[in-house]
Amino acid sequence: MKTPLESLQTRLRQPHVREDVLAAFVVSVLLIPQSLAYAMLAGLPPQIGLYASLLPLFAYAALGSSPVLAVGPVAVLALMIAQALGGLPAGVSPAEGALVLAAEMGLILLLAAALRLDALASLLSVPVLYGFETGATLSIAISQLPVLIGSPAQGVDLPSLIREFWAHGLVWQDLTLAYGLGACALLLAGRRWLPPTLARLAPLGLLLAAMGLAWLTDARSQGVTLLGSLPPLDLRPSLPRLDAALWLALLPHALLLALMAYVSSLVVAESLARRRGERVNPAAELRGLGAANLMAAFSGGMPVGGSFSRSVLLQDAGSRSRLSGAFVALFMGLAMVLLAAPLAWLPKAVLSATILVAVLSGLKLQLFVEAWRYARPEALLMLLVCLTVLGVNLAVGLGLGVLGSIALLLQRSARPHVAQIGRVPGTEHYRNVDRHAVECQPDVMGLRIDESLVFTNARGLSDAVQAYLQTQPQVRRVLLLMSPVNSIDFSGLEALRELHAGLMQQGRRLDLSEVKGPVLDRLRASGWQRWFEGRVFLSHHQGMVEGERPLRDDPSPVI
Amino acid sequence: MKTPLESLQTRLRQPHVREDVLAAFVVSVLLIPQSLAYAMLAGLPPQIGLYASLLPLFAYAALGSSPVLAVGPVAVLALMIAQALGGLPAGVSPAEGALVLAAEMGLILLLAAALRLDALASLLSVPVLYGFETGATLSIAISQLPVLIGSPAQGVDLPSLIREFWAHGLVWQDLTLAYGLGACALLLAGRRWLPPTLARLAPLGLLLAAMGLAWLTDARSQGVTLLGSLPPLDLRPSLPRLDAALWLALLPHALLLALMAYVSSLVVAESLARRRGERVNPAAELRGLGAANLMAAFSGGMPVGGSFSRSVLLQDAGSRSRLSGAFVALFMGLAMVLLAAPLAWLPKAVLSATILVAVLSGLKLQLFVEAWRYARPEALLMLLVCLTVLGVNLAVGLGLGVLGSIALLLQRSARPHVAQIGRVPGTEHYRNVDRHAVECQPDVMGLRIDESLVFTNARGLSDAVQAYLQTQPQVRRVLLLMSPVNSIDFSGLEALRELHAGLMQQGRRLDLSEVKGPVLDRLRASGWQRWFEGRVFLSHHQGMVEGERPLRDDPSPVI
Repeated sequence: MKTPLESLQTRLRQPHVREDVLAAFVVSVLLIPQSLAYAMLAGLPPQIGLYASLLPLFAYAALGSSPVLAVGPVAVLALMIAQALGGLPAGVSPAEGALVLAAEMGLILLLAAALRLDALASLLSVPVLYGFETGATLSIAISQLPVLIGSPAQGVDLPSLIREFWAHGLVWQDLTLAYGLGACALLLAGRRWLPPTLARLAPLGLLLAAMGLAWLTDARSQGVTLLGSLPPLDLRPSLPRLDAALWLALLPHALLLALMAYVSSLVVAESLARRRGERVNPAAELRGLGAANLMAAFSGGMPVGGSFSRSVLLQDAGSRSRLSGAFVALFMGLAMVLLAAPLAWLPKAVLSATILVAVLSGLKLQLFVEAWRYARPEALLMLLVCLTVLGVNLAVGLGLGVLGSIALLLQRSARPHVAQIGRVPGTEHYRNVDRHAVECQPDVMGLRIDESLVFTNARGLSDAVQAYLQTQPQVRRVLLLMSPVNSIDFSGLEALRELHAGLMQQGRRLDLSEVKGPVLDRLRASGWQRWFEGRVFLSHHQGMVEGERPLRDDPSPVI
Repeated sequence: MKTPLESLQTRLRQPHVREDVLAAFVVSVLLIPQSLAYAMLAGLPPQIGLYASLLPLFAYAALGSSPVLAVGPVAVLALMIAQALGGLPAGVSPAEGALVLAAEMGLILLLAAALRLDALASLLSVPVLYGFETGATLSIAISQLPVLIGSPAQGVDLPSLIREFWAHGLVWQDLTLAYGLGACALLLAGRRWLPPTLARLAPLGLLLAAMGLAWLTDARSQGVTLLGSLPPLDLRPSLPRLDAALWLALLPHALLLALMAYVSSLVVAESLARRRGERVNPAAELRGLGAANLMAAFSGGMPVGGSFSRSVLLQDAGSRSRLSGAFVALFMGLAMVLLAAPLAWLPKAVLSATILVAVLSGLKLQLFVEAWRYARPEALLMLLVCLTVLGVNLAVGLGLGVLGSIALLLQRSARPHVAQIGRVPGTEHYRNVDRHAVECQPDVMGLRIDESLVFTNARGLSDAVQAYLQTQPQVRRVLLLMSPVNSIDFSGLEALRELHAGLMQQGRRLDLSEVKGPVLDRLRASGWQRWFEGRVFLSHHQGMVEGERPLRDDPSPVI
């Protein structure tokens, strides 16, 4: 095993360092405004976002797995941090809370890596994830409105903003509004009309222009809120406050943050890896993100995750290895030294415009339409999660979504589709008699139950078979096609045994076909030879053909 | 629609009334001691068990569906009632609490029938149900020990009994112990050595003998606790106390009781119906049980359900219709008139012996062994539920069990078995290359993923396919056998689309075979023609053979 430092040294000798440096520069240009803005969104001093974009990136470069995952402050996580820090006990500053959150997240992610809990991410279905992200994105956009227009309203979520606007009316400051709307318009125009290379530099250019304008016209004296001077670069290690009550109070939030940071980063890394025909190592992602967050906790940062927009940029700009993340950090350090003084003149409304344009351009409403067309109940769940995130909070929305996904899955498995099957003429293939022109035998019934035999549907097995037999009482033999049966749990085994016993009492015979290897292995291990008197056929066709011969006495399966 | 009274009249004119009367007599003989004993077990005056065995049986006969389900007081429900009534507010007698519970259960069951919630019963898997019943049975047996030996201990569950015995030592009353153990021995001997007809009369004979002996020897004066005189038969309607706080406090218990009463009755009715090749109507069972419990609430009874032992007896004794239940009720009324006075002399230890022998003979430990052999995790869940019921309480045990079953189901669907498949020589059938001697083509890979494409495994789809492709990079075409795919949810659809896009970018082609009708219907409705450029083959064999021809330009599916 190489140490992280050694592997970093190896990487530095690779030939594609040039590409990585260039990609890193392009991403840093976007990261400077975003890191300031997302710290502000989380209710933290702006420089914390810059610190979170420095050393954590080295940690991910050393331990992560994706060459194009851009780690750092992320909009959705920032909103979750804001909600988590909303209930801090008196005497604890938001910055201290953010350090504890980052430390807890880091430990949770590393623990999850050690316990191989990466599969838990699969509990978040696509509808839940997109419902959540859409709700969070809209919440973020809404939270930026007061800053954008210079209103004194303090609310960070939709209900409290509505109450404030209802109580005090919509108040704005003219010049701030001009800065905010102007920045929005320029950013949108840049995305639309500038060539890609220039468009990538637009956010930084806008920042520089806005700072210059504010300094020339002395915007502060005209009532525009500015960012204010940042403290000088200070890389002394920070220590999260060791206060058991505080850690315990923030733990549920940290769990949720860790889950979202992991899942959203994984989705980004996987979708980019697919484009290159590569695979992602989920355990390495857990380690990389865990290390990055622990590093954030010890270097005065805030919780970090993988950013979709910046990762796409990193890939498009030609990043070849995780080293690009380390170069991004170096550029960020340089920027902090060079920009610390001028940033004091940046109007906050311009930063808000950066957030607004960044998050709203990530909205994918098309997915709602597609879900609605494909699966109504899942589309409704998506909408429910989105509205709950908007109107209540992120945690409740996510919880409802996970429970809803599980309920839909159980419901599907509880009501399997059942079909009588017959032979497609001229082939050895058997299909539903209601959908295809197929041939049947009068005394043998081929049945297909489209589900694994598990507890949710086990009790209905005999019933489903009996319903078909009542329409064709002359049937002496039932051949159950087991290719849709991917597993049989203990309830399913009991159901199969009862179906078998019931058919025997009626003087009928139960045979099985196309039982999969892993399923048959377990049936054999359970000693089913003691009660199962039918036969198991390799293919359904063989089962239909063999059945025409007289039954053999020995019940030994064919396979 | 006939009214219940009309349908009862129709039934009375049926020819099999004689069989029903005989079966009813045999069951009444067992029901007399059991109804007294289960009322006692529930912490209620003994006559309440008798009332619960009268009018509720008419209600089930009118609205239920099973001709052999013996409704009335049940041991496991009695234990649940005892736990529910343990926390009654001051000033409410257990009998009043039992009426409220029965009324709530009746309303819940009727509401469930109206809302078609019968599918919720499928949440109780076999391991959970047997773990629960075993734990409850052992709890019941333990709760009878103090009565059987004449100890003053009051505990109704294992932990409190252990504490009491620990604190006060094991105290018993000699003559009570003699009655109790003697009754146990005689009941067990009767089951073992008497011919079946006489064995059925044994419990009543034992009761009569014990009453006679206690009267002759004046057992009360020698310290034996007797049942005491019952109030005379009183069929005036009772009214459950209309106290919102009381109803609310008992509601969770009533929900649990309703679920268990329904599921355990359904299991009994279904297992007996299977022997006759008949089907059970779950909605009618809900209505019948709901009506029976409502009737219990208005006639001074307690919550009722279907008894396994008495139902088997009813079927074995030749019951042909639900009318037998009504005759059981008539016999019970007669018994109450005739036996009210002598029952006063019945030693409680003899009743406890009846309960002990009845419940312990229903223990099926064999199922634990079978579960252990077939599915280790489910056997452990069974044991966990059993121990939780014994050591904590019934509600926690049941809750843990349901959550555990769902977790195991999710885990199974999250880690599907994947196999490369090849042609079984001389057939059109394709099986796992690792298990069978099959033929493969070098440039086309046949793959089978043994699970529906749902959110728990969707994220792993591309990964699983990519893992196989990395071992055979020369493959130009992947043919996915869809027969194990019983459904595709929205997450699965996205995964399929991403797999398709990923393979396209690598210059490979994705085709599907044996997509089931319902799955294909939904894919088409979603408009997948816009992105899916592969083909859908009716059979996997066709897909392998057709692939040898040049690809057609039109992407229209074959089916």
